[in-house]
Amino acid sequence: MRQVSGGVTAAKGFVASGTSAGIKRGRKPDVALVVSEWPAIVAGVFTRNRVQAAPVRISKDRVRKAKARAVFLTSGCANCLTGVQGWQDARLLGRVVARHLGFPEDEVLLASTGVIGRRLPVPRILRVIPQLVQRLDRAHHRAAAQAILTTDLKPKEVALQTTIQGRRCHVGGMAKGAGMIAPSMATLLSVITTDVGMSPSVLQAMLREAVAQTFNRISVDGDRSTNDTVFALANGASGLSVKAMTRDAKIISEMLHQVCKELAQRIVEDGEGVSRLMDVQVLGARSQREAEACVRQVAGSSLVKTMLAGADPNVGRIAAAAGASAARFDPSQMEVFIGGRRVIAQDRVLPLDKAVAKRLLAPSRVAVRIDLHAGTFQAHLLTCDLTEDYVKINAGYAT
Amino acid sequence: MRQVSGGVTAAKGFVASGTSAGIKRGRKPDVALVVSEWPAIVAGVFTRNRVQAAPVRISKDRVRKAKARAVFLTSGCANCLTGVQGWQDARLLGRVVARHLGFPEDEVLLASTGVIGRRLPVPRILRVIPQLVQRLDRAHHRAAAQAILTTDLKPKEVALQTTIQGRRCHVGGMAKGAGMIAPSMATLLSVITTDVGMSPSVLQAMLREAVAQTFNRISVDGDRSTNDTVFALANGASGLSVKAMTRDAKIISEMLHQVCKELAQRIVEDGEGVSRLMDVQVLGARSQREAEACVRQVAGSSLVKTMLAGADPNVGRIAAAAGASAARFDPSQMEVFIGGRRVIAQDRVLPLDKAVAKRLLAPSRVAVRIDLHAGTFQAHLLTCDLTEDYVKINAGYAT
Repeated sequence: MRQVSGGVTAAKGFVASGTSAGIKRGRKPDVALVVSEWPAIVAGVFTRNRVQAAPVRISKDRVRKAKARAVFLTSGCANCLTGVQGWQDARLLGRVVARHLGFPEDEVLLASTGVIGRRLPVPRILRVIPQLVQRLDRAHHRAAAQAILTTDLKPKEVALQTTIQGRRCHVGGMAKGAGMIAPSMATLLSVITTDVGMSPSVLQAMLREAVAQTFNRISVDGDRSTNDTVFALANGASGLSVKAMTRDAKIISEMLHQVCKELAQRIVEDGEGVSRLMDVQVLGARSQREAEACVRQVAGSSLVKTMLAGADPNVGRIAAAAGASAARFDPSQMEVFIGGRRVIAQDRVLPLDKAVAKRLLAPSRVAVRIDLHAGTFQAHLLTCDLTEDYVKINAGYAT
Repeated sequence: MRQVSGGVTAAKGFVASGTSAGIKRGRKPDVALVVSEWPAIVAGVFTRNRVQAAPVRISKDRVRKAKARAVFLTSGCANCLTGVQGWQDARLLGRVVARHLGFPEDEVLLASTGVIGRRLPVPRILRVIPQLVQRLDRAHHRAAAQAILTTDLKPKEVALQTTIQGRRCHVGGMAKGAGMIAPSMATLLSVITTDVGMSPSVLQAMLREAVAQTFNRISVDGDRSTNDTVFALANGASGLSVKAMTRDAKIISEMLHQVCKELAQRIVEDGEGVSRLMDVQVLGARSQREAEACVRQVAGSSLVKTMLAGADPNVGRIAAAAGASAARFDPSQMEVFIGGRRVIAQDRVLPLDKAVAKRLLAPSRVAVRIDLHAGTFQAHLLTCDLTEDYVKINAGYAT
C-alpha cells in the first residue's frame, strides 16, 4: 500500500471539478462536484445533531438506496435552518446537476457547509453548474478539495494505491474541517472514492468503522455541526471486487481507515487558530463509557487547551478535568504522563523543572496519557489548543 | 430587607482580616481570616470534582461536626495534588491559626484557590498569621474579600439587613470566582455569615438550596475546579433564632438566596476576559435532565460564546448547540429568542436586518430563550462570552 497523488480522483473512473459561484466573497471557489463515470454504490455517515441541514436530510434518504454517481458540494452557506425554501433550493440544485450529468435525480448526493440560517444564492449557483459539469476531469481533484474549504486554510487530500490479484486499486478522498470539529463529527465534509467493487452493506460497514475510529476521534472546539457528512463511493472500475470478511476486504478496509485517519489528522492540524495538537489517551477506566467521558472532558477543557496554547506547565488542570468527568477513580491512584514523562502520581504534581516542563509542552504534537488505574478500558482523542486566533476567527464569522 | 455595607462582617459578632503572605508575587494580599466572636454553627457545600484539594477534604470533615468559628483562606496556590505533604501543610496552618485564636483546631475551616500542584509556602504564611489575627476587625471585611481573589479583578461582597421580631439581623458574604466557573461550581470560594441562630440542619438545607439556584447556575468556561467551597456560619448574635419551616426561616432563607445570587452574578461579570453576559433559558423540554443538558450545551458552546464576544449575529449556532445536546425535540418546532425577539422558528433563521441583529447582541447582558416545544421542563444558566482575553489570561497562568 503506498500513498499516491490524485485525492478524490485517484481511483479509476472518478472525475471532479470546482469553481466559484459567488456564495463566498471575493470569487473564492465554493462549489465542487465529484462524479463516477461508472455506476457506483454509496455509503454515508451523517451528523447526529438533531438540527440537520437540508442537504443532510435529502442525502440520508438517497444513501439508503445505495446507488449514486455524483456528489455536489457547496461551501460558505450551510443551507441549514432555512425551512421549506432551503429544502426546495437543495432539491432544485441537485435536479439541475443531475440533468446536466444525465443521471437520475436521486443519484446525486448533496452536502453544504458554512453559515447557518442563510439561503443559498440559487440563481448564482445555477449559472455555474454547466461550467462545473464541463470542467469535470481526473486532473481537477485539487480544485474540488479547494472549493469545499471554509475557514480551513489548506485543501486536504489523500490517496492510497495497492495491487490485489494483479489489479491496481485505489482509495482516495478529500475533506474539510476547521471549527466545530468534535466527536460526533462536526462541520466535517468528506468524500471518499474507491475503484474496488463491493456490496453496499460491506461499504457501509467499512465506512462506519473507519469514521468511528478516525473522524469521530478528533475534536477542535467540542461543538458538533448540523452538516457533517462523509460519503464513500465505490465503482468497481479497477476490476477487483471484494466480499465481506475476506482477506482482500480487510486490505481495502485498512486503506479506507488510513485515508480517513490521515484526513482527520489534517483537519485538526488545520483547525481554527490551532498552533499545537494534543493526543489524549485515557487508560485504566472502569468502562468504555467512562474512558470516553474522561478523554472528552480533558480534550474539551478550555483550561487544558489554553495551557497547551501557552505551553504553560499548569499540568494540574489535566487531573482537574479528569476529576470533573463521569469517570470513577481514586485520585491517589491516577497517573498523568506528558510526552512519556510522569507528571502526576500519588495525588501530587511531581516536582518538575520549569524548563523541562516547558520542553514537554513545546512539540507541535503533545502526547498526554492519563492512567486512572480503576479498570481496563481505554479511549483516545486527537485535539488541539485554544488560541486567541480561534476567538478572533469565530467572533466575526457571519459578519 | 435592604442592602447594607459590611460584606462578611455585616452580621453582628463577625470580624475579618486580610494581608499578604507572599504566596502571590508583588505583595498582593493572599491570606484572609473570618472569625465569629461567638460560638457558631457551620454548613458547607463543596466541589463534586473527584480530585479534591487538601483543604476541601479537611473542611468537609470539620463541617460534619457543624461547629466552627473561623475560616482561613489562601489564594495563589490551590494546595491540590500536593500529596501527603499538602495535607500536612493545611493541617499545620489550621492548627497555628486555631492556637492564635484560642479555638479547638477543628473549629477552623480551610479553603484555598490558585495554581494546582504547588505546595503552599508554609514558613511565609506562618510568619503572617499573628498579624492576621491581630488585625481582625469588623472594619476589615474588604481586606478579606480582596485577599481571596486570583484572576478576578474586583472584591465581591454583599450584605442584607432586615428586622424580625424587633431584632435587626443580617446575612452577608464574600466570594471569589474568575476562570473555571461552571456548574457544579468551580474555583469558587465563598464565605457567608449571619447573626441569626438556627440548627445546623436548617442552615445546611438553606445553603444547599441557595447554592443550587445561584452558584451552580453560572458558567464561565465549563470547567469545574478542585477547590470549590461555600461556607455559611451562623452565630445567633442578633438574638433572633429561627426554626425550620417558619415564616422567619423563610425570610432568612430568602436573604441567603439573594446574597448568593448577587455574589454569583458578580462572579460571572468578573469572569476572565468577560465582555458580555448571557442569560440562557431553555423551555419546553421533555424532562428536567434534558432541559439542563440543553442549557449547558448552549451556554458552554465555544461557538455561541465567541458569537457573543463579537456580537456576531450567527444565531444558527444556538440551534446547532441545542441540537447537539441530549435533549430530544423536533427542530421544526423549536423557537429561539434573543432579547425577546424571535430569531429562529419553523426550522429557519428568520430574516433579520443586520443592524437589528447587532443591536440584539449589543447589550452587556443578552437574554437567550430556547423553547423546544417538546414538554414542560425548563432550566436557566448565566454565562459569559469567550474572548481573546480569556485565552491570554489562561495561556500563561502558571508561569
